[in-house]
Amino acid sequence: MDATPNRTPEREAFYREISPHNLAPLWDVLHTVVTKEPVSPAKPAIWRYDAEVREYLMRTGALITAKEAERRVLILENPGLKGKTSVTHSLFAGLQLIFPGEVAPAHRHTQSALRFVIEGHGAYTAVDGERTIMEPGDFIITPSWTWHDHGNDSDKPMVWLDGLDVPLVRLLDASFAEPGNTETQMVTRPAGDSLQRYGQNLLPVDWKPERKTSPIFSYPYPRTREALATLAKNGDPDPCHGHKMRYVNPATGDYAMPTIATFIQLLPKGFATAPYRCSDSTVFVCAEGEGESKIGDQSFAWGPRDIFVAPSWHRTTHRTRAESVLFSFSDRPVQDKLGLWREDRGNR
Amino acid sequence: MDATPNRTPEREAFYREISPHNLAPLWDVLHTVVTKEPVSPAKPAIWRYDAEVREYLMRTGALITAKEAERRVLILENPGLKGKTSVTHSLFAGLQLIFPGEVAPAHRHTQSALRFVIEGHGAYTAVDGERTIMEPGDFIITPSWTWHDHGNDSDKPMVWLDGLDVPLVRLLDASFAEPGNTETQMVTRPAGDSLQRYGQNLLPVDWKPERKTSPIFSYPYPRTREALATLAKNGDPDPCHGHKMRYVNPATGDYAMPTIATFIQLLPKGFATAPYRCSDSTVFVCAEGEGESKIGDQSFAWGPRDIFVAPSWHRTTHRTRAESVLFSFSDRPVQDKLGLWREDRGNR
Amino acid sequence: MDATPNRTPEREAFYREISPHNLAPLWDVLHTVVTKEPVSPAKPAIWRYDAEVREYLMRTGALITAKEAERRVLILENPGLKGKTSVTHSLFAGLQLIFPGEVAPAHRHTQSALRFVIEGHGAYTAVDGERTIMEPGDFIITPSWTWHDHGNDSDKPMVWLDGLDVPLVRLLDASFAEPGNTETQMVTRPAGDSLQRYGQNLLPVDWKPERKTSPIFSYPYPRTREALATLAKNGDPDPCHGHKMRYVNPATGDYAMPTIATFIQLLPKGFATAPYRCSDSTVFVCAEGEGESKIGDQSFAWGPRDIFVAPSWHRTTHRTRAESVLFSFSDRPVQDKLGLWREDRGNR
Amino acid sequence: MDATPNRTPEREAFYREISPHNLAPLWDVLHTVVTKEPVSPAKPAIWRYDAEVREYLMRTGALITAKEAERRVLILENPGLKGKTSVTHSLFAGLQLIFPGEVAPAHRHTQSALRFVIEGHGAYTAVDGERTIMEPGDFIITPSWTWHDHGNDSDKPMVWLDGLDVPLVRLLDASFAEPGNTETQMVTRPAGDSLQRYGQNLLPVDWKPERKTSPIFSYPYPRTREALATLAKNGDPDPCHGHKMRYVNPATGDYAMPTIATFIQLLPKGFATAPYRCSDSTVFVCAEGEGESKIGDQSFAWGPRDIFVAPSWHRTTHRTRAESVLFSFSDRPVQDKLGLWREDRGNR
Repeated sequence: MDATPNRTPEREAFYREISPHNLAPLWDVLHTVVTKEPVSPAKPAIWRYDAEVREYLMRTGALITAKEAERRVLILENPGLKGKTSVTHSLFAGLQLIFPGEVAPAHRHTQSALRFVIEGHGAYTAVDGERTIMEPGDFIITPSWTWHDHGNDSDKPMVWLDGLDVPLVRLLDASFAEPGNTETQMVTRPAGDSLQRYGQNLLPVDWKPERKTSPIFSYPYPRTREALATLAKNGDPDPCHGHKMRYVNPATGDYAMPTIATFIQLLPKGFATAPYRCSDSTVFVCAEGEGESKIGDQSFAWGPRDIFVAPSWHRTTHRTRAESVLFSFSDRPVQDKLGLWREDRGNR
Repeated sequence: MDATPNRTPEREAFYREISPHNLAPLWDVLHTVVTKEPVSPAKPAIWRYDAEVREYLMRTGALITAKEAERRVLILENPGLKGKTSVTHSLFAGLQLIFPGEVAPAHRHTQSALRFVIEGHGAYTAVDGERTIMEPGDFIITPSWTWHDHGNDSDKPMVWLDGLDVPLVRLLDASFAEPGNTETQMVTRPAGDSLQRYGQNLLPVDWKPERKTSPIFSYPYPRTREALATLAKNGDPDPCHGHKMRYVNPATGDYAMPTIATFIQLLPKGFATAPYRCSDSTVFVCAEGEGESKIGDQSFAWGPRDIFVAPSWHRTTHRTRAESVLFSFSDRPVQDKLGLWREDRGNR
Repeated sequence: MDATPNRTPEREAFYREISPHNLAPLWDVLHTVVTKEPVSPAKPAIWRYDAEVREYLMRTGALITAKEAERRVLILENPGLKGKTSVTHSLFAGLQLIFPGEVAPAHRHTQSALRFVIEGHGAYTAVDGERTIMEPGDFIITPSWTWHDHGNDSDKPMVWLDGLDVPLVRLLDASFAEPGNTETQMVTRPAGDSLQRYGQNLLPVDWKPERKTSPIFSYPYPRTREALATLAKNGDPDPCHGHKMRYVNPATGDYAMPTIATFIQLLPKGFATAPYRCSDSTVFVCAEGEGESKIGDQSFAWGPRDIFVAPSWHRTTHRTRAESVLFSFSDRPVQDKLGLWREDRGNR
Repeated sequence: MDATPNRTPEREAFYREISPHNLAPLWDVLHTVVTKEPVSPAKPAIWRYDAEVREYLMRTGALITAKEAERRVLILENPGLKGKTSVTHSLFAGLQLIFPGEVAPAHRHTQSALRFVIEGHGAYTAVDGERTIMEPGDFIITPSWTWHDHGNDSDKPMVWLDGLDVPLVRLLDASFAEPGNTETQMVTRPAGDSLQRYGQNLLPVDWKPERKTSPIFSYPYPRTREALATLAKNGDPDPCHGHKMRYVNPATGDYAMPTIATFIQLLPKGFATAPYRCSDSTVFVCAEGEGESKIGDQSFAWGPRDIFVAPSWHRTTHRTRAESVLFSFSDRPVQDKLGLWREDRGNR
């Protein structure tokens, strides 16, 4: 099952003959499309926020307004997927910037979006009539096909990481989008309502979920951090993951979003993880601490706000110089639902 | 939400400056990646089996053996996706040929495969120790990561349509494959065992499904045809679909495969369907009858064994000249599970 | 945790004092209500159809009409539960008789009912507008809250076993019932429609189940028998069960009914099962063959149409004198859903 | 479907003749076992804690030790179900008392238990190696078949309401129990671990639930109260329920326990609910406030710590004299899973 049959002149002639009839020989490409192991076009990469990216991001302020841009986002382009709007093969990541007084106008689309807040205080994301105030470390969701807009009523620029399932929805040819007819949606519920309503291990008695996405719009960092601290205090770290949790949809116990898994993990100071690889390419963001990750054959030192990506089936290890917290996201829920997800916890 | 911001010289300079840092402006491509409606690169197309494809297929017999090819398959390449091994954006289709006495050797892969038998009698597909004898109209499954081989003990060539989730598994970077260590797997259960064991509305008392795919390897055409005939006799056709059913995993009631939906529909003689579109691009195969389908702006006349494809969100109508049966498949289970599937039953 | 505290005079005085206030001491009954193992009030028992029960049943014909009785059923009363309308602690069984020309008028109730046909040919059970013709060995369902009536257009008496969840629905105080406003419901679909529509490993494309009960009203014996024969031919019998299958709801893979499991098992000639016990009290009906079962300390010889009951946690073995088929039912789906079901496959 | 056939002398003679053969006529009892509406043997009732029950409870201290009693619990006996250990037809309730320094020794059983803390501070319930400190208003779970013991290290008596599925497990003949081999189980995890680990809208990344019960052992009152306050502030009360939530298993979104639903509801001051009835008999406990409830034809005034029961299908209204919080529990998850649950929100 290794060898691709030779391309003899006779065969090549035949291939040319059938091509206009929309036919092609499978045996000529079989081993490149059905590979023994994942062969991702994506490459390991890092975006150093403070050292590099932040300056470019801030310069976009002079280049274009949030309103003209609709969303003033710099795409984090995977170096193996230039021009594809992709951070991994199936997912998109970008850094979004809103200056004080700006608004990113209301729209909706079938693509699901996550936000992980990088810097700034007090801007909001409005979803379904509720404005969520954004603070660093918060994980915020815009479910598929919900109206959403962003605004910054503070006096500092606000930056967050966007993660979307754009390449996946593109492959499925399932993109729908609609602009709002007002810039800013009406506020119908106070900030924090969804967390109290759905996030306290209670649910309204007659409420039934209408979507596959969590009804909680915001998972605030302090609460997440507290859970991590408890785990770290009460038990031993997993050799591959440290203390790692996944964000959950309280209506189902499933991932918070149907297409994107989101994780948070605490790595103690001086901790070195055992080699690990999995079939879901993963985007990491450093929320706290500093360390170094080896992804395949490449090593990347990281600190707060840096973003790096481990493509599918690339053996990965982390080593910390301080207690560190990593947020991460991947397409694991898709692979789980389709019976495709694999991991390898063994060392070489 | 319509206009893409102008590319001023200043902006272009900035884009060039950030590109080496793996950064790019989202606003420059936003409306091409988040489209108002699906904009599929796939095009409507037809492959006329008797009139055109069969001859090319038979000629591959002189070109390469089944064994050298591993799988002697002509890919049905969507004309909008040349070189991509894709019949729709997310799925693969091909026609596989095995001559008498030939064997397609055992292998396994994470890609799921369906077979819809086109011509010939009595070749087999072996899965999990059970050889299924293939007859025209049968729908046969090779679940993800199961050993499978094919052989032809009859005296005629055998042809079937292969449908796989190759492009989807590629996007997810989740391809694993392994060659068997013998050409032909050992037969451990008689033909028809899985259908009797799992397909009679009974299940073995302590059996628990280990996979997301149906435990039935073959859905024989006579039984399917009988169900269609009963539906047609006992009720009115659906305006958009005629009498349409989906193949089911009896362990869950879900689609027979986790990544690919398979359908069968009977259209009465002279029946013209109402316009219909959906977000799952669909591959149709004519099992019986003849008619014409309009897909978007193109019309295709079809008869037995012809294969045609309706890309996502292309308005489609069928009109029959004889009672017709269409088998079809799409990625609808994926879109359902991810909350993305849409249909439009309205007329223009 | 074994001893119940003594009943001293002082304690007894206190118990008498608090009783009018609807208070009672738990410690006085703790070990009788929270037992180490199930202590069922139900007893092993058998009803010999040909030798005994049939004559009584036929005599009811002179005593009362089907119409006056509404349902002419002799309850199979468990000898440990006299006056409780119960064959096991949670389930009801009875034998229903309809003479030629009689009708059991339409009604509906929240109790779910199964029918297992004992003798006669050609009477019908009508459910949801479809009349199912009843033949010996068929398993027929009347889902909760569906209109149903029975009639006998043949020239022989017709008898079937009824199994209902009456005691369970009683404990839950969830009984609702309604008489039909005509004796016989209108026929809107031909006989056999539900089996073809839902029972061929296909489902109508846009159909969604509205109930937790199988949409198939009848599981005909020939098809079931064929599956059993295949299992017996293709594999070894389970030591405790022989070749045993459960009837399945094709829309979910769950049991055919939400409150009652139904099973069918083939025991080869001369087969003796290993000791087995489980927490679901089970009613067995001999469909074919003859043998003997030991239930707890009692032995029961049985032949065709005999009915016997194994209460919860009574160790049971079967020994056959001819190839035998046993139909059985229990409350296992309830125990499964509530996390209570246990079995013990070990020998003494 | 209303009249029960007459008991003629001939019929009575027949009934007597068949009775020794474990046969009985269904038609004689049909309308008492398949009733048009629920006819519960349970009656509306109230237990006034401060005015009445507390004194009796405290007197048990002189009568028996916690150790001798194993569990020093006064059963709340429904007046319609004397001697049945039942507060509703399917559920048990009792008040458990532990004095300072006492221990209720470790045991486990298949019955599931809930605790709702009535008075005292600082006693503990230990489950799975974690001691939960109990405070008034906390809802605490002992899942089926988990080791649990209770102890009181404070200097005041501690009282809580126990709710168990004893009658249901009895009907199913599924009771298993085992005494611990030490009085007090070893503490392996700090108090509060389960709430942080599973209750913050995160789950450990590789954790899979092993039971159908919530992995959170304690739902502390302050957090629940905060959610209720938010609901009350942000929206209108439901006419029948005020602001009502159900406790949730974060691993599934289902009820916290598989057999017992638990609810908490806030009724504003002066609020009068619209008439409501449902098929799940419900036990209410007043956590805060005071008011009056009409259940069927009876009215009950209640205040803090009072417990009252509304049997199945009894029309119920509440009227408050102060802002009030009611905790309640019922068998609704059972009825939901079996397709039996009904409610009637209409007025008379």
